[in-house]
Amino acid sequence: MRWIDVRQLPWSEVYVETDRLDRLAEAIKGMEVRGAPAIGVAAALGLALVAYHAKVADAQALYRELESAAELLRKTRPTAYNLFWAIDRILAVAKRAVEKSVPVDDVRSAVINEALRIAEEDVRTNMAIGEHGKRLIDDGDTVLTHCNAGSLATAGYGTALGVIRAAWLEGKRIKVMVTETRPLLQGARLTVWELRKDGIPVTLISDGMVGYVMSRGMVNKVIVGADRILLSGHVINKIGTYTISVVAKEHNVPFYVAAPTSTIDPYSKIEDVVIEERDPDEVRTVVGKLYITVKDVDAINPAFDITPPDNVSAIVTERGVARSPYNESLARLLKRS
Amino acid sequence: MRWIDVRQLPWSEVYVETDRLDRLAEAIKGMEVRGAPAIGVAAALGLALVAYHAKVADAQALYRELESAAELLRKTRPTAYNLFWAIDRILAVAKRAVEKSVPVDDVRSAVINEALRIAEEDVRTNMAIGEHGKRLIDDGDTVLTHCNAGSLATAGYGTALGVIRAAWLEGKRIKVMVTETRPLLQGARLTVWELRKDGIPVTLISDGMVGYVMSRGMVNKVIVGADRILLSGHVINKIGTYTISVVAKEHNVPFYVAAPTSTIDPYSKIEDVVIEERDPDEVRTVVGKLYITVKDVDAINPAFDITPPDNVSAIVTERGVARSPYNESLARLLKRS
Repeated sequence: MRWIDVRQLPWSEVYVETDRLDRLAEAIKGMEVRGAPAIGVAAALGLALVAYHAKVADAQALYRELESAAELLRKTRPTAYNLFWAIDRILAVAKRAVEKSVPVDDVRSAVINEALRIAEEDVRTNMAIGEHGKRLIDDGDTVLTHCNAGSLATAGYGTALGVIRAAWLEGKRIKVMVTETRPLLQGARLTVWELRKDGIPVTLISDGMVGYVMSRGMVNKVIVGADRILLSGHVINKIGTYTISVVAKEHNVPFYVAAPTSTIDPYSKIEDVVIEERDPDEVRTVVGKLYITVKDVDAINPAFDITPPDNVSAIVTERGVARSPYNESLARLLKRS
Repeated sequence: MRWIDVRQLPWSEVYVETDRLDRLAEAIKGMEVRGAPAIGVAAALGLALVAYHAKVADAQALYRELESAAELLRKTRPTAYNLFWAIDRILAVAKRAVEKSVPVDDVRSAVINEALRIAEEDVRTNMAIGEHGKRLIDDGDTVLTHCNAGSLATAGYGTALGVIRAAWLEGKRIKVMVTETRPLLQGARLTVWELRKDGIPVTLISDGMVGYVMSRGMVNKVIVGADRILLSGHVINKIGTYTISVVAKEHNVPFYVAAPTSTIDPYSKIEDVVIEERDPDEVRTVVGKLYITVKDVDAINPAFDITPPDNVSAIVTERGVARSPYNESLARLLKRS
């Protein structure tokens, strides 16, 4: 399989190709591939790789290989729910095939087809998110977004950026304000790069400027993606999202979240959610290229934070827009299909 | 005169020496010297340089040279109030001497002595701020600070860091959490460097992590410096300060400001305050060393924001601690001396 190493954007466009699962797992862990939907698709395609290459005599043995591959993939990024969702979906398909006692090659095909379906669905899902979400955006709006919830975080089109794209394609004259999103600068590196390719007007700000632009009325809406959404409406997303939500609430700026229903975790409570703590050198450096502080100073590096439902004006999914109370509206969306 | 070029910290300790006023003005504008109190002291010493070197026949001519030097210095950083305060103080001394018709060399001496007095007073003032402020800090506290309001922002000891130093020297076991403070990274580069030299425990975070650490109860107090304080209690300080104040209020974390009374602007209303807009390349790069985005993307770069009095728990000055209503408490402090 093949991906663009987003760590190297916007400096260079490097594509990586591999048929080794451990290389893919390393790419997910190291954030060459990132964004919850993209991680889900990558994991599904990784399992398809295993199914394709596994040297096994029977379906049971293939299933065991898939299970151990799933185990490896689950450990890469503990917070992104789409990872678990995609893996479970592939394993369920494999299990059904194995239980029907089909030949091993039929199990292989079933897994590969399901993985390709997940990838194709992701783009369609994002376009549907865009269709539902664009109604929330008005002509003339300046929309603030954080991190990258675009093509580079999905199989294509994007979630939060999908909404922005759909509004733009409909002819709404909008502007986007992007936070650089330290430590890994996905806003400055990826979102700016994507929006410029589409010709959508974009202005870059440092993360600390959010209060300034909101206090001056320079932003009308906020829209971000999500790595996991609980039924309670708690949104786990890139570190910095919660800070923005607090400032948005203070200034009565609507705060929207755009994500596929595969991001909704119907099982976990807030205390179950593991916030991934990454290497503090990501904070002490600029994407590994330059130390910005005393080299051995203590630093913390939580990759995500949690925005409570009170700060979320609406959650846009491919099945419609959920509003508070979320335990009812999100459960309703999950039942629909 | 001589200063440390703080732009080059923590990578190298470079001292600059000059007797040319235009070189000093360039250093203030380019932020080789920064921090409101340090800018005030530097401007005073710059006028002393002019007084010392001016080739003039009489006191009137010297005064005209000082006025034109003041004009140049006033244009360097429009927001820092201490700059205007220090310049006005030097010009007032020069004017009094000129009006007394003293010989030109006596005017020179008066100016030089006043400048040295401003520099010495600044350190004493900061130590007094520390004494008043340390009562606000409790044993076991983790105190969050933003940017650098330390030795490197003053003639020595620091304002916000002066309070932290005084609490630490008193034996309170405190920890400091520092925001890196994009775009120019004064927190990561300067505050970490200073606190490490003093052996005070420090943890670095990215600016967007403020919400995370407050929501987890990892911070008990916030203390920052100020570039200008209005009688209404509005605090103009490094961009990002206002965002932190909003999050602190949301979590009932006390938000303190430490600054000398020379930072208090008794004349301006909020609509009079010019927020300096700096080169957008500061946002598009990391301190000029590395582009982090598409090179010609739009970016804004306001150097300061305004924190309203409602978000400020107290203002610590060398004359005591002011609390709301600030128009009364700050006016009282200004009258005292």
